[in-house]
Amino acid sequence: MTKATNDAPADQSATPYLEVMPLGGMGEIGKNITVYRYGDEIMVVDGGLAFPDSYQVGIDLIVPRIDYLQQNAELIKGWILTHGHEDHIGGLPYILPRLPRVPVYGAPLTLGLVREKLAEFGLKDGDIDLREADTNAKVQIGTHFGVEFIRMTHSIPDNTGYILTTPVGQVLHTGDFKLDEEPSDGQLSDLGRIEQAGKEGVLLLISDSTNAERPGRTASEAEVARNLESLIASCKGRVFMTTFASNVHRIQNVINIAHRQSRRVVMEGRSMLKYAQVSQSLGYMELPEPFLTNDEVGTLQDQQVLYVCTGSQGQPMSVLSRLAFGNHAKIALRRGDSVILSSNPIPGNEEAVNLVINRLYELGVDVYYPPTYRVHASGHGSQEELATVLNLARPKFFLPWHGEPRHQINHAKLAQTLPRPPKRTLIARNGDVVRLGPDEFKVTGTVPAGAVYVDGLGVGDVSDDVLLDRVNMSQEGLIIMTAVLHPTPHVEIVSRGFVRPNRELDAQIRRVALEAVETGMREKKRLEDVRDDMYGAVRRFVRKVTGRNPVLIPMIVD
Amino acid sequence: MTKATNDAPADQSATPYLEVMPLGGMGEIGKNITVYRYGDEIMVVDGGLAFPDSYQVGIDLIVPRIDYLQQNAELIKGWILTHGHEDHIGGLPYILPRLPRVPVYGAPLTLGLVREKLAEFGLKDGDIDLREADTNAKVQIGTHFGVEFIRMTHSIPDNTGYILTTPVGQVLHTGDFKLDEEPSDGQLSDLGRIEQAGKEGVLLLISDSTNAERPGRTASEAEVARNLESLIASCKGRVFMTTFASNVHRIQNVINIAHRQSRRVVMEGRSMLKYAQVSQSLGYMELPEPFLTNDEVGTLQDQQVLYVCTGSQGQPMSVLSRLAFGNHAKIALRRGDSVILSSNPIPGNEEAVNLVINRLYELGVDVYYPPTYRVHASGHGSQEELATVLNLARPKFFLPWHGEPRHQINHAKLAQTLPRPPKRTLIARNGDVVRLGPDEFKVTGTVPAGAVYVDGLGVGDVSDDVLLDRVNMSQEGLIIMTAVLHPTPHVEIVSRGFVRPNRELDAQIRRVALEAVETGMREKKRLEDVRDDMYGAVRRFVRKVTGRNPVLIPMIVD
Repeated sequence: MTKATNDAPADQSATPYLEVMPLGGMGEIGKNITVYRYGDEIMVVDGGLAFPDSYQVGIDLIVPRIDYLQQNAELIKGWILTHGHEDHIGGLPYILPRLPRVPVYGAPLTLGLVREKLAEFGLKDGDIDLREADTNAKVQIGTHFGVEFIRMTHSIPDNTGYILTTPVGQVLHTGDFKLDEEPSDGQLSDLGRIEQAGKEGVLLLISDSTNAERPGRTASEAEVARNLESLIASCKGRVFMTTFASNVHRIQNVINIAHRQSRRVVMEGRSMLKYAQVSQSLGYMELPEPFLTNDEVGTLQDQQVLYVCTGSQGQPMSVLSRLAFGNHAKIALRRGDSVILSSNPIPGNEEAVNLVINRLYELGVDVYYPPTYRVHASGHGSQEELATVLNLARPKFFLPWHGEPRHQINHAKLAQTLPRPPKRTLIARNGDVVRLGPDEFKVTGTVPAGAVYVDGLGVGDVSDDVLLDRVNMSQEGLIIMTAVLHPTPHVEIVSRGFVRPNRELDAQIRRVALEAVETGMREKKRLEDVRDDMYGAVRRFVRKVTGRNPVLIPMIVD
Repeated sequence: MTKATNDAPADQSATPYLEVMPLGGMGEIGKNITVYRYGDEIMVVDGGLAFPDSYQVGIDLIVPRIDYLQQNAELIKGWILTHGHEDHIGGLPYILPRLPRVPVYGAPLTLGLVREKLAEFGLKDGDIDLREADTNAKVQIGTHFGVEFIRMTHSIPDNTGYILTTPVGQVLHTGDFKLDEEPSDGQLSDLGRIEQAGKEGVLLLISDSTNAERPGRTASEAEVARNLESLIASCKGRVFMTTFASNVHRIQNVINIAHRQSRRVVMEGRSMLKYAQVSQSLGYMELPEPFLTNDEVGTLQDQQVLYVCTGSQGQPMSVLSRLAFGNHAKIALRRGDSVILSSNPIPGNEEAVNLVINRLYELGVDVYYPPTYRVHASGHGSQEELATVLNLARPKFFLPWHGEPRHQINHAKLAQTLPRPPKRTLIARNGDVVRLGPDEFKVTGTVPAGAVYVDGLGVGDVSDDVLLDRVNMSQEGLIIMTAVLHPTPHVEIVSRGFVRPNRELDAQIRRVALEAVETGMREKKRLEDVRDDMYGAVRRFVRKVTGRNPVLIPMIVD
């Protein structure tokens, strides 16, 4: 290998620092990807996606910019994946094919979900070098990165954090976590290893800030299961339950509850079936009885069925939405049915979920959801759990991660209240280059980071300008004015999303536009100027008469 | 007066029933308006507005349809207003001028706010027959409606419910309420009168369902004031506080706190100033010291100032938003400042408020908001308060109001758990005609009800079709194809909100469109058919190449 690329400082292998570069997931919740660089070696963690907010109109999903990785592609030595959630692996089909083939390590379920995802994109198994690692495996990446996975409880099995041993010291990254004392699979978070690392010396802790504003502890999955068990026992008719399809433990618990209460389980919705199939095939889900299809339910009584369906976030095409709006092809909800939303709306989905809940009430169905019914628990630890990890790890430096600024800063404040606060805490953002040395912890620069919009088949062909056009058109609609100059000038008006058809207003706009065109032609102006005049005249007229500013598109046909 | 209009059944004055017709505020939170009809007399309560949800793109606000009132205009005998919130009086400038002039009764602050509003719309005081009524006044409307206002605590002074005495019996309408045991003005809810009405016999209770899903009691305004007092005492620098501008008691409390802590108050934002001015002029707000303007703050130290500003809902043009995004003309936030959000986001505003909060954190400001800091309390009673009113009123019939179906139905369920549950509860919707007699309580039909969209200067000229166009354009953008047929056919392409400028794609689309046009002309098709062919060809091509369905607008210039 050549000593260094143009991008790397000369003789970097001798520099006594590690660079930590979050390209996603820092200052936001979503599209996690973290890059480590030491000398001329790069290691990457995760490659997630994010969902658009309400300002990112019409976008399907968002993946992180990876310019830095593309520019330094030959330095990438390996990749590790902490768990199988979309915000950690959902961007991989867009990212991995654009970079050299290097080993990608992850736990069995994580890799199972990645394989499923790659197959959807027509990528073959061999295209990507997936390597299975236990949740406490040790792997070496390049010459500088020793990775030890550590088990952490979360809302999906096979979830991990890791300890990264580098020439400058140890980095402990919690990954997404809560400290569930009664996890469904009996696999506790490996606090012993964290404590040991703390004794050895943790130079930097990177920890999950999602619930840094919540006091106390996050409820255990076992408590949720107990509440679900008694709730379902009280239901007289059919039960429809929804949760995140990736919450394999929750779904396993519900399958067990159904079995104990003599209900057969029907899985409804593509992602439910996909996760169930992957989990089963890898041994993460066990069925006391096979699932039924809805067609096989026929002879069963209402209290002998439990449907597990998609739609916990009010997604319009999900099973629960179609049930709520009465347009499911095969199933119609009726009085006596119970619907359990074993979930909370993710920020941004509140309105959609509220709409579904109201429609369910209107159908006369019994509806159960948090906080009235304690049938959901977050996958992320609250303040006491965050404090436990900080206390055990006793890091010298601290990087609150996986959170918006409000979460990061409250996590930082929490750390300051503890007996052994970190020497220094940084509130970093995507693209920051955080330099880490035995006595050094600071942001020294930035690399490109941000959002690549995925819309239809296009990746990156929708820009913020395009979104601004969409927002503008959505606010007040649009008017197209086509001035045809020959044989005699006339103007055609087409509008969309402006006001309901109004011949008189159209005629007035046509007249105003035509006047501007005729004046311009008389004065022998250039066509661009005639067009601008028409634009200005119509803009002023429409604003005066309607108080609105629709998008105006003037066209001149010579 | 003629005996009856065409709309009224013959000899209706002898019919032994009252009709209750909610035209807004039933099955929703917003645009409250309730119509009572007995024989050939109509009385109306409130006339509010609603704000658009995320599906009602670009709309400024929504007012209720009043077709029924317009069709029966000569029957309207009077109007009463329960309080001065926008969702109860904000629609009046759109509604009252369209109907005959009849007496409109309300408490002093309520009418003060209505006058302000009418003036903004260029309506003169005399155009509307406003009549001041105390919060326990009795007024007669027509010959059939005896109205007794009753004081109820809420998040604005001069709030009332009312007891309506009619030939069929008594109707108790709580209006918006909570049962605050320590109201800022010392004016408790008139539970004594409610109990007395219960003993006399309440035929129908109409009660506020907003917080029917919340257990316990809503916190008192006094508790919020105590929490604000100790929080502000702990702030070292400037304090910026936001709440609803109409929450006069909250703002009065903060003014008093500021005075006790030797801070001068600056009011920032148009609606803050408007409410403060109306409240002061009517004696609902007292200033121990005059407000300062920001320009007068100059020589004061940071800990001697407290700003009360607009923006509790993250509104883009509000003072707090401009401060958070660093584009306020005169004030720049800095480390050491404290911002207190004495409010919760109204459903639908969560994302906007979250954005503001994150920006404030990024500025290094200390930010305080619920639930971490208990600096806000709802204006609506929780389950125990709702139960108190039900227990005291002991209604025969019950109409849960001021809520979405989830709130109405949980209110209904709550009523069923009480010692003396109502004989019958109806879950009504806007437009339902609820017939009420001594032994009769049912929906007998519907009248027109729904949303009139106000957009710019237009009222009602934006329809759902127009909104659908807006949504479609916002999802995938739009492509305009103009085919000019002479002298030789060519096609121009303009797109907005589709993809970023892409010459190659434009050229391909032009080619596909032109082919369709040329083929059509060769086959001597009619122009409409040529246009449709062009549309179809481009639709298929774009979908195949991009996976998207932008709005397509084909135009042919002959």
